[in-house]
Amino acid sequence: MIRVGIVGATGYAGEELIRLLLGHEKALITKLVSRTFVGQFMEDVYPSYFGYDLPRFEKASKVELASECDVVFFASPSGTAWPWIRDLISINPRIKIIDIGSDLRLKDPLLYKEWYGYEHGAPELLLKSVYGLTELNFEKITNAGLVANPGCYPTAVILAFAPLLHFGLIGVDSIIVNALTGISGAGRALSQGYHFPECNENMKAYGLLRHRHVPEIEQELNIIGKAIGRDEPVCLSFTPHVVPLNRGILITGYGDFRWDKAKVSDLNIKPDTLGLTQLYKDFYHGKKFIRIRPADQVPQTKAVAGSNYCDISIRADERTGRILVMSAIDNLVKGAAGQAVQNMNLMFGEPEDTGLNLAPLWL
Amino acid sequence: MIRVGIVGATGYAGEELIRLLLGHEKALITKLVSRTFVGQFMEDVYPSYFGYDLPRFEKASKVELASECDVVFFASPSGTAWPWIRDLISINPRIKIIDIGSDLRLKDPLLYKEWYGYEHGAPELLLKSVYGLTELNFEKITNAGLVANPGCYPTAVILAFAPLLHFGLIGVDSIIVNALTGISGAGRALSQGYHFPECNENMKAYGLLRHRHVPEIEQELNIIGKAIGRDEPVCLSFTPHVVPLNRGILITGYGDFRWDKAKVSDLNIKPDTLGLTQLYKDFYHGKKFIRIRPADQVPQTKAVAGSNYCDISIRADERTGRILVMSAIDNLVKGAAGQAVQNMNLMFGEPEDTGLNLAPLWL
Amino acid sequence: MIRVGIVGATGYAGEELIRLLLGHEKALITKLVSRTFVGQFMEDVYPSYFGYDLPRFEKASKVELASECDVVFFASPSGTAWPWIRDLISINPRIKIIDIGSDLRLKDPLLYKEWYGYEHGAPELLLKSVYGLTELNFEKITNAGLVANPGCYPTAVILAFAPLLHFGLIGVDSIIVNALTGISGAGRALSQGYHFPECNENMKAYGLLRHRHVPEIEQELNIIGKAIGRDEPVCLSFTPHVVPLNRGILITGYGDFRWDKAKVSDLNIKPDTLGLTQLYKDFYHGKKFIRIRPADQVPQTKAVAGSNYCDISIRADERTGRILVMSAIDNLVKGAAGQAVQNMNLMFGEPEDTGLNLAPLWL
Amino acid sequence: MIRVGIVGATGYAGEELIRLLLGHEKALITKLVSRTFVGQFMEDVYPSYFGYDLPRFEKASKVELASECDVVFFASPSGTAWPWIRDLISINPRIKIIDIGSDLRLKDPLLYKEWYGYEHGAPELLLKSVYGLTELNFEKITNAGLVANPGCYPTAVILAFAPLLHFGLIGVDSIIVNALTGISGAGRALSQGYHFPECNENMKAYGLLRHRHVPEIEQELNIIGKAIGRDEPVCLSFTPHVVPLNRGILITGYGDFRWDKAKVSDLNIKPDTLGLTQLYKDFYHGKKFIRIRPADQVPQTKAVAGSNYCDISIRADERTGRILVMSAIDNLVKGAAGQAVQNMNLMFGEPEDTGLNLAPLWL
Repeated sequence: MIRVGIVGATGYAGEELIRLLLGHEKALITKLVSRTFVGQFMEDVYPSYFGYDLPRFEKASKVELASECDVVFFASPSGTAWPWIRDLISINPRIKIIDIGSDLRLKDPLLYKEWYGYEHGAPELLLKSVYGLTELNFEKITNAGLVANPGCYPTAVILAFAPLLHFGLIGVDSIIVNALTGISGAGRALSQGYHFPECNENMKAYGLLRHRHVPEIEQELNIIGKAIGRDEPVCLSFTPHVVPLNRGILITGYGDFRWDKAKVSDLNIKPDTLGLTQLYKDFYHGKKFIRIRPADQVPQTKAVAGSNYCDISIRADERTGRILVMSAIDNLVKGAAGQAVQNMNLMFGEPEDTGLNLAPLWL
Repeated sequence: MIRVGIVGATGYAGEELIRLLLGHEKALITKLVSRTFVGQFMEDVYPSYFGYDLPRFEKASKVELASECDVVFFASPSGTAWPWIRDLISINPRIKIIDIGSDLRLKDPLLYKEWYGYEHGAPELLLKSVYGLTELNFEKITNAGLVANPGCYPTAVILAFAPLLHFGLIGVDSIIVNALTGISGAGRALSQGYHFPECNENMKAYGLLRHRHVPEIEQELNIIGKAIGRDEPVCLSFTPHVVPLNRGILITGYGDFRWDKAKVSDLNIKPDTLGLTQLYKDFYHGKKFIRIRPADQVPQTKAVAGSNYCDISIRADERTGRILVMSAIDNLVKGAAGQAVQNMNLMFGEPEDTGLNLAPLWL
Repeated sequence: MIRVGIVGATGYAGEELIRLLLGHEKALITKLVSRTFVGQFMEDVYPSYFGYDLPRFEKASKVELASECDVVFFASPSGTAWPWIRDLISINPRIKIIDIGSDLRLKDPLLYKEWYGYEHGAPELLLKSVYGLTELNFEKITNAGLVANPGCYPTAVILAFAPLLHFGLIGVDSIIVNALTGISGAGRALSQGYHFPECNENMKAYGLLRHRHVPEIEQELNIIGKAIGRDEPVCLSFTPHVVPLNRGILITGYGDFRWDKAKVSDLNIKPDTLGLTQLYKDFYHGKKFIRIRPADQVPQTKAVAGSNYCDISIRADERTGRILVMSAIDNLVKGAAGQAVQNMNLMFGEPEDTGLNLAPLWL
Repeated sequence: MIRVGIVGATGYAGEELIRLLLGHEKALITKLVSRTFVGQFMEDVYPSYFGYDLPRFEKASKVELASECDVVFFASPSGTAWPWIRDLISINPRIKIIDIGSDLRLKDPLLYKEWYGYEHGAPELLLKSVYGLTELNFEKITNAGLVANPGCYPTAVILAFAPLLHFGLIGVDSIIVNALTGISGAGRALSQGYHFPECNENMKAYGLLRHRHVPEIEQELNIIGKAIGRDEPVCLSFTPHVVPLNRGILITGYGDFRWDKAKVSDLNIKPDTLGLTQLYKDFYHGKKFIRIRPADQVPQTKAVAGSNYCDISIRADERTGRILVMSAIDNLVKGAAGQAVQNMNLMFGEPEDTGLNLAPLWL
């Protein structure tokens, strides 16, 4: 059995991780670390766990964590994980670590100052960690000890745009992404804006121009672009919105369709919706959790709820010369805990879908 | 593998059954029968099943069903299943059948005329079938070939009141039950009242005085009462309400607390909330899916969502001399498809929880 | 113009009061008192008021309030209003006061200790104040200077049961009330249970056995009973539930139907649903905001949302010998601010519906 | 009194129109025309109107309508209004008509064939009618007999972009609009996608690339552009999404910021968010129902719910060189019935806000 420790288990991503691991035949939760709920049980925080046999929340001893766990997940606030990760590795260099938070995602430490407002004290971890977008970095994750689990929006955006960048079919300076999220994405902490009567029957944008996921998305899309020799950096407009439901992220992305006859001929597709759809199917061939929807369907969050799927659909708009690409994920599963388990599976030589074979809940 | 056929797979109970069976290691869905969607796939009706390998919906051949399935589930409208069930059994007497609908639930065929408005043509099936409230009829179900899966409300109401009737602690003429259901309980068929803008931000009672689940609840509570020699029939007031959410049933029940010193002394409890709570725990000891909540907690539908649990809590109200009992289930799981799977497990010698070890989704 | 002051204007009842008064042709808001938001504007707390010309929130000077207002509404937490009310009256005996909170509702000061947990320091106000259930105390309110605006649940419960008690048609020891409320009823203050993801898609009971509205309901129903010479006190079971929507209270009440031939003959009705419905219509004849729904309809919160209506419907259940009565109100309007305005109208000689002629919002 | 007839009164826009007119001191509803509900009352379709004194639905006699009404509103399906409108005008040339539907909105009859799929048989009406976006066509509407009430999305989009086009600050070939709507926007007709359990807890895009509001938006933005001598046509990408709430439209629009020193100097603004915000305030100066939100606020649908406001906010994004503009309306009020009443007011010489002075409902 894989012995699992979780730091920050009482947040929504941590809670989802526990839900998934309880159904994972090879994982055993041995340590639950929490600052706030020391001595309490999961069922004291989430009544759904009434009667479950889970360890008590405890103050973290790094030595214990490092020695009694094969893998430690971090689901803790920005800027709090990296000192722990550094120390755990120094205590036990073979321990595997998956940070569901944001402390390992950006390669350039200066970006933490600019976008997160804090000084990152362990830049060496940034270089060492693998960006855990499973479908795109499969091999690297398989061999990794340290994985930066992607943000929820970046997961949905990067999966949606990756084929376009990989095949050079989009103007990288023209990418605009509109995103919708359910309220669980805002986390468990109370705030007036997420008090039921104030977000029920409401919708609004937030994080305008400066959402923290912007540099993460740009970084990863740039990597794809560079791999085919294109050096212009992505210039992303990204506007997230909150809508009154619990689970789900829906991405609607736009960009200029850049196709030239030669390239399209090389790819052996027609430059239309059907051609692009086929290209997406080929690109994600064999990727179990990516479902390319045909041209008469749209991704919708209900079709992926509770599951690890990312549904994607693509359109070529002849009228405007633009591409429209949409994707849907469950922000707590493929957008957080599910992808973390998927990465854990790879890191431990398990099939990627162990513990993740959950059909979506339509209702 | 248990070869499974489902008649009426495209309704909400049928859909949930498929979701659960896809995660059941011993079950294989071999036949999906539908009148309306012949030739189509599950994913054509429910986009969440995109990419799943399930048989096409077909018009039913009874001979095929009876010979190619080990068990057939019926999730079809009232009055449509019993002719089929009769024929299947006559073709293959060893076939096992679980009716998630209402065609086998009432022992007295006249009640079908009175409450459902149709003449039941196979009263012999009513006598032969076992009422599938798993926790109360465990042995009988284990040996049954024909199971009447309980209604959603009856499951929650009977489990909540059973200990009170079993121990003779309630006035059977005083039982009043208020029930709340999410909208999935109304099924997949369209109607103005369940058009989103008209039931969102609304609540109302329905089925006043004459809901079809009344005779089913009374029948089963009377059986429990008679087993301890009490012949007065239960006289139930039952008022269901629809509230704007998808999953869940919440029961709030009232009755006069009938305790005499002798009885309470026999039971070795104090006649208060703590005493009753202990009595409930004892009554349901070893029943994995029944969780008795202590006196500082209340059942809530979110704590059971997506799972097969029934959460129950009991209060003695000294001020009024009444008992207050509450229960919560997921109407689609313990209230329909989950309990059906639980019954199938018993009928095939499997542990009752195979395929049902799903932690509730708090979010 | 009626010069209006509001103490506690930033809570949900206060906010609704402002919304209604802005459409009231005879009222002018001159003072907004708040502890927390001194110096700010309504639009700083509720973005919907952007651009409205309302006075700044200020720390309260009792002398100013008493001299610059014709009426002061209190929408402040339990136990905080009575010292103010006492002082305002002593400064200006002719000032009119309407307490939307609970500080004037119970006639017996000991009940405050028992149900609210504090010592009420001005019992003389309790005797002096009129209970502001407009339809039942029309004359008294017209002549009152001091009105205790009823609680939201009591409004719906008392209006639903009043005719039954007035005509002696119900066993007063048999009254059971199940209540549902939208989340605005829980107020603006943050708590984990009303964080969107935790109450969305959830339902549960709360305030079991000991909700503060119990003594208020019993007090007023007893007054009605005594008026026809019946001295047995009402013994009420009352269970409120929260359901995931914003506005609305729905009451479902039960009681033993007590009719004797003589009485029914006196009343000249048949002892059935039609007879009782007619009795209700007669009882509330001329009461504009009470709508008695016929036997083929049920009250629903959507039909009263945003309006001052109370919809009521009654059933006689021959099978059980019980009465079923339902009512629906908008908790913020008829259950709080609307009824407060209705009372103000009476106190100032205005038609009761001035400023309240708002058709419900079905959508 | 203005005698009002409504054709199509039972749809959601018609219902909202009745709600608003009931509070309009100068309007009297004299005719309600319906095909489906002839002989019934509004309260038979919408229980909220129980007890209201409204005329029965009747089959339409054009002669009666034309002679007994001063104004007729059409809230009927696409393609059904224009034959009526043509006939009413020919019977009574002085009758005033406001089409809340789409039959008068597009100036080019060929666009009806292309986008609506039907042949428009009265192109002369298209030329004669005034596009009823009140704030932009104030004078024309005041003098009009025939008004094409704008679509819900076009109202929000055009109001949001008008200043940018008027001042030439945006690349007209770069406009991308993402839109969110509540479910009331889909109307009263039943469909599986708007059955509560299937759209609750879901979000998805619809009408991809070809939504009928595209040509309407392009037409009106082009008019603004041409007025300042710019002939390049707007090329709009427009993607609407449904989210699970009742009321509201939220627009998030993008475009390239085109400023040259000369122009910005002419306008006397800084080319940043503050400068643009000031420009918007100036542009909409005196327009009561347009509220420009400052740079630290965002439009949100809750802040306009039930009211006729359009809230707008603008950002200059230096990082990307793009403009971000957002607007929020209540789709049933400013997006349909409210704007129709506003237009009626102008056409009859009333203040534009008569009957529309309704504070938004935050709760």
